[in-house]
Amino acid sequence: MPPKHDNEPCDARIPFNVITGGVTAARGFRASAVTCGIKNPEATRLDLALIVSDSPTVTDAVFTTNKVRAACVRVCQQHIKDSDTRAIIANSGNANACTGVQGIQDAKAMTKAVAEQLNVKMRQVLVCSTGIIGMPLPIQRILPKVPDAVAKLDAAGSDDAMRAIMTSDTQPKTFAIEVPCGDGSFRIGGIAKGAGMICPNMATMLCFITTDVKIGKNEMHRAMHYAVEKSFNCITIDGDTSTNDTVIVMSNGASGLPAIKRNSPEFDLFRCALHKVMLELAKMIVCDGERVTKFVEIRVRNARTQADARKVAETVAKSLLVKCSFNGSDPNWGRIIHAVGYSGARIREELIDIFFGGLLACKGGLATKTPISEMEKVVKEPKFTVTIDLNLGTSGYTVYTSDLSEQYVDFNSSEYSAAIHAKRQKGFA
Amino acid sequence: MPPKHDNEPCDARIPFNVITGGVTAARGFRASAVTCGIKNPEATRLDLALIVSDSPTVTDAVFTTNKVRAACVRVCQQHIKDSDTRAIIANSGNANACTGVQGIQDAKAMTKAVAEQLNVKMRQVLVCSTGIIGMPLPIQRILPKVPDAVAKLDAAGSDDAMRAIMTSDTQPKTFAIEVPCGDGSFRIGGIAKGAGMICPNMATMLCFITTDVKIGKNEMHRAMHYAVEKSFNCITIDGDTSTNDTVIVMSNGASGLPAIKRNSPEFDLFRCALHKVMLELAKMIVCDGERVTKFVEIRVRNARTQADARKVAETVAKSLLVKCSFNGSDPNWGRIIHAVGYSGARIREELIDIFFGGLLACKGGLATKTPISEMEKVVKEPKFTVTIDLNLGTSGYTVYTSDLSEQYVDFNSSEYSAAIHAKRQKGFA
Repeated sequence: MPPKHDNEPCDARIPFNVITGGVTAARGFRASAVTCGIKNPEATRLDLALIVSDSPTVTDAVFTTNKVRAACVRVCQQHIKDSDTRAIIANSGNANACTGVQGIQDAKAMTKAVAEQLNVKMRQVLVCSTGIIGMPLPIQRILPKVPDAVAKLDAAGSDDAMRAIMTSDTQPKTFAIEVPCGDGSFRIGGIAKGAGMICPNMATMLCFITTDVKIGKNEMHRAMHYAVEKSFNCITIDGDTSTNDTVIVMSNGASGLPAIKRNSPEFDLFRCALHKVMLELAKMIVCDGERVTKFVEIRVRNARTQADARKVAETVAKSLLVKCSFNGSDPNWGRIIHAVGYSGARIREELIDIFFGGLLACKGGLATKTPISEMEKVVKEPKFTVTIDLNLGTSGYTVYTSDLSEQYVDFNSSEYSAAIHAKRQKGFA
Repeated sequence: MPPKHDNEPCDARIPFNVITGGVTAARGFRASAVTCGIKNPEATRLDLALIVSDSPTVTDAVFTTNKVRAACVRVCQQHIKDSDTRAIIANSGNANACTGVQGIQDAKAMTKAVAEQLNVKMRQVLVCSTGIIGMPLPIQRILPKVPDAVAKLDAAGSDDAMRAIMTSDTQPKTFAIEVPCGDGSFRIGGIAKGAGMICPNMATMLCFITTDVKIGKNEMHRAMHYAVEKSFNCITIDGDTSTNDTVIVMSNGASGLPAIKRNSPEFDLFRCALHKVMLELAKMIVCDGERVTKFVEIRVRNARTQADARKVAETVAKSLLVKCSFNGSDPNWGRIIHAVGYSGARIREELIDIFFGGLLACKGGLATKTPISEMEKVVKEPKFTVTIDLNLGTSGYTVYTSDLSEQYVDFNSSEYSAAIHAKRQKGFA
């Protein structure tokens, strides 16, 4: 019997082709990026991205659950209410968080500048920021560049936009698919930036997805919830959640297909496709976490409830000692079972089986005879799976995580510190 | 108005003198240690400790909340029911966890061997273990040494016993006080071993405390609960809880003072004194955490409820990014306020003040003008305080924590891994 309520990927169920184009892969979207010198007035890197739909959209978004929310998140939460978003403006280099009334004014000024240029309403523009917190946005360097960004809008502008939102990311994060549907096809694509807590200061997971399906507000909301739960909500690098985390999906109906109806086969196809795009971007985020050397899938099986399965998976994925053992390529099931024990889930020690890849390391809570050298081969791989079978019920949950490396700590203490102080002392906002 | 329900130390309220003698400082207790070669048959270090009361006791204990519990913990939980414990036997080098039926038999065999030598009942002997998990205890090397341990029992044996329970600890952890009371005095003293998750495999916080007060079972239980809540339950190194954590307090009435009555001034004196001893030992454990370079007190003030204050203190204390910033001597209030935000406590961002030592880094959720160089001086110290004032209510909570160093990760991945594999391959149990 397959596990109930699992968050397993559903991409096996749908036909799709991987295509290029990222956030402009879907028809009717354009993107661009410009250089404002947000981190540093002399810098030449792209740091302001713009994404625009040429026609009206139905848009939904999910924001950080952190109670300390950046000014841009607060403004977005107001603007998204009407759902008919036309553009997203996003900067890197400053998170516009812990910036008080001034921060709200600055975020609104960014949406106003875009709205004026595009001749849309302010509330049709969403705004995102990522970077250092507690310092005012250098708005006087941003606003004059908005007309340039609008002038540069291009159906091939996705890569520029993606580069403009990167902070400590070392790898591009872009993914798009085309899905055959009825007499035609629809496209979904997106770009994302780094996860977990990224330099400077902490930072943010941002993900912008566009699609040319035609879909109602309620159906979009349901598909969004489904796909986020099974992708971004099941990755963890260091257990922290940022003040700025944002996922936005815009749909403009430009595929020419009929509107997707509730509970139709087309709805199922769309939410699986959306899930596929989000999951691919989420995995890229984990793999590119700060100084990550391993990508590990933690699969919990046969828990009493999905809530229990999730507790176990997340606790194991967040345990420092487990993450250190991954880093050291150590098949250390002792640390795993111990994290299972303090997860708060209902477990019975004497029923727990733990696998590294396909190898049984622990059977009924006791060591097996599997040679350590065999298990080490699994854990030495850059990607592997740990399966924890609780043998108590039928529910499962999967979490994607990484190791914890010395370099992470180094990066987040001394190196970071030196960089940020140099910046503060130079007075760069 | 002082904060409600705080877990502040109450030692200022009581008179006491620090004395030597550790777990044998109180009258009528003896201790000893012997070498069994538990980790390694050729090793010469002490690895089996024995603590004995010469007269009947009232004893209470607190055990790990981890649902994966070591065999010795399960046996202790049975034996403690009658409370009249006479002895504690404790080994290092093997945790006797994830060892199934054989583990229970081995733990019982240890209590039986001690009981026979002391001519007491098996259930009057408690048993503790710390070390590697998932391997059977080398019981055949332990049992023959029990008569030696009994023969060596000495009123000056505390240091030997302490050394025998150390694993990756680098510093001795012993503390004792004498408290004037009525016409005489009572003594409380104890020994402890390393905290957080310690090598090998994960390990354990063990703490054995003895006192010569005369106290009933219920009063002892109440004092124990009070003191543990305000000491061991408010330290955190890496957020993990072990399969073997145990705190035991034995009282034998040898002070000659009258029995301590419920709700009397003497009861208050005793529970504050017990708290003092536990807090000192708990602080030693944090300071000697794996590769710790900083000891940090996280004080949360003016939360709506103590539960909220605790959530905030624990979340900040456990945040990897906050711990990394302590390691790098970075006065990074942004990481702190962000952890406050995801703690789950009721907060209002615009009311939050954050201090490093006495310096206001963040006022009402915004940066202050305090020079970073001044705040850096505070955070560069090996011990400092971070105060988070939520300005929402009147409740407080304090947590003691440490930084996270590169060496911690190194120690828990490669070094550890190499050591444990060498051991497994040699077949040492």
